[in-house]
Parts: sequence; structure tokens; C-alpha cells
Amino acid sequence: MLVHELSAAECAAVLRRTHIGRLACARAGQPYVVPVSFAFDEEHGCVYSISSVGQKIDWMRQNPLVCLEVDEIADTGQWQTVLAFGMYEELDNDPGHAEARQRAHERFEVRKEWWFPAVAKLPTREERHAVVVYRIRIDRLTGRRAGSA
Amino acid sequence: MLVHELSAAECAAVLRRTHIGRLACARAGQPYVVPVSFAFDEEHGCVYSISSVGQKIDWMRQNPLVCLEVDEIADTGQWQTVLAFGMYEELDNDPGHAEARQRAHERFEVRKEWWFPAVAKLPTREERHAVVVYRIRIDRLTGRRAGSA
Repeated sequence: MLVHELSAAECAAVLRRTHIGRLACARAGQPYVVPVSFAFDEEHGCVYSISSVGQKIDWMRQNPLVCLEVDEIADTGQWQTVLAFGMYEELDNDPGHAEARQRAHERFEVRKEWWFPAVAKLPTREERHAVVVYRIRIDRLTGRRAGSA
Repeated sequence: MLVHELSAAECAAVLRRTHIGRLACARAGQPYVVPVSFAFDEEHGCVYSISSVGQKIDWMRQNPLVCLEVDEIADTGQWQTVLAFGMYEELDNDPGHAEARQRAHERFEVRKEWWFPAVAKLPTREERHAVVVYRIRIDRLTGRRAGSA
């Protein structure tokens, strides 16, 4: 088995066709990682996601440095994994975020069922307001592929 | 869809039957997360793994606080995820680690093919020596399940 570095174009291709990743954040040296649904915006170099307010959002508000891991694992000998290092940015109702929110919502509309779990645990109308749309601005993208060739 | 907290026994059951997780570490506030193969040792409250020396090992040597995420995702409405928070500990050739190394190697023997990728990128005999056996001592285990019931 050989392991290759992926090119930038190959990394982007994985992000285009994959919609579940594992997002890691950290506070006071303690990392925290959870699965997230995301949508890639290649033109603007970011991914969008949505989440109810909780530990992940609390921690990223305190420290916006994150790492999104996306992989395609066929078996232990055939896999590729892409890491997007970047910064968490909340897309609140500030007019400066209107265009980015619009781009996020266009992508969320394509597959509404992806996003439901992010807010599923919120049972009341009041709590549904505690939902955050955010993007990860990608600063660096790396990837590796393992296989027989 | 409802989201439930998993009991300690349910979290342990996921770790017993799952062998690929995503391991997050952090350095200077920057998280880093990669897929790993692991074997759970329920009796000793830890997981074992093996890796070639690289960024992940370098970072965990500097800051042993880690988070291992393990999930079973059928679709966006049916999933469970377990987080093991704990401490990285290298199982070097110190006699104090002999028993733990033995337990790790017994588990590695069960499915040798899992472990090969961890060292696959090392082409020379000299570099193969730069392989680390380690455990994550689990301090806290949490889990959630989403589904229709």
C-alpha cells in the first residue's frame, strides 16, 4: 500500500462530494470533536453549517480555530482523508453577513434532510431560535490517499 | 426524531464493536483530527492504537489531552456518536508498560490488517522503528443517539 498527498484540486473534490465531516475545536488545551453536516462553497473558500447552541458553538465562540476532517474509507487499505484548517465565523443577522447567509441557505435548501438533525434536539419553539448558521473559512487544505497504486 | 443520551454501558458497547474513530488533539489552541484504528480495553478503561511518528504523535507528546470520537451513522436521522475524553500515554519499552503493551499487542493480533495502514507510509527498515504504541486512558465517556424512537 502506498500513501500519497492529495493535490488542492483532489482535496476540493472530496469536499464537494462529501457532506458529513468531523469538526474539532479546542478550549484550554482540551480538544472536542463531533460529526457535522456541511456544504462546501469552493468559490469563497469556506464550508457552511448549522447547529443548535451547545458545547461546540460555545467553544468555537471562545476559540475560532478549528479542523474539519472529511474522509472516504473503503477499508483499511483504501481510504482518503482531507483536513480543512480554518476559522469559525458566525453568520448572524449583521447586514455584512447577508450574502454569505444567502449562499449558506441556498445550499441548505438542496438537501433539507441533512440539516434537520442539527436542530432536532430542540423541542420548543423558543429553543429553536437558538440555532446558529456558521461558516469555516478555510486557511489550509491538506489530504492523503492510501491505496494499491 | 428524538435524541437521547447513551448510558455508560451503551457507550462501551459502541467502543467494543467499532474499530475506526477520529482522534482529536490540540496544540496552542489549534485542534487537529485524524482517523485512527483502535482496540478497546474495557477492563482497563482505555483504548490502544499504533502510529508512525508524525504530527499527531508530536502534538500528543506536547499536550496529552485528547478526544476520540466514534460514530455509527446510518443516515442523518439514525445515528449514534460516542466521545471518549482522556489522556495520551505512550507505551514505550519501560518495564512499567510491559503488561499494557502485551494487552495492546494481543488485540492488534486479532485483526492485523487494521494496523498496517498506520505504518504503511514508512518505506525503510530504519523508519519502521519510528512506530509508537499508545493508549488513551479514558477519563469521561459520553454518547448520544438519534432515531425515531
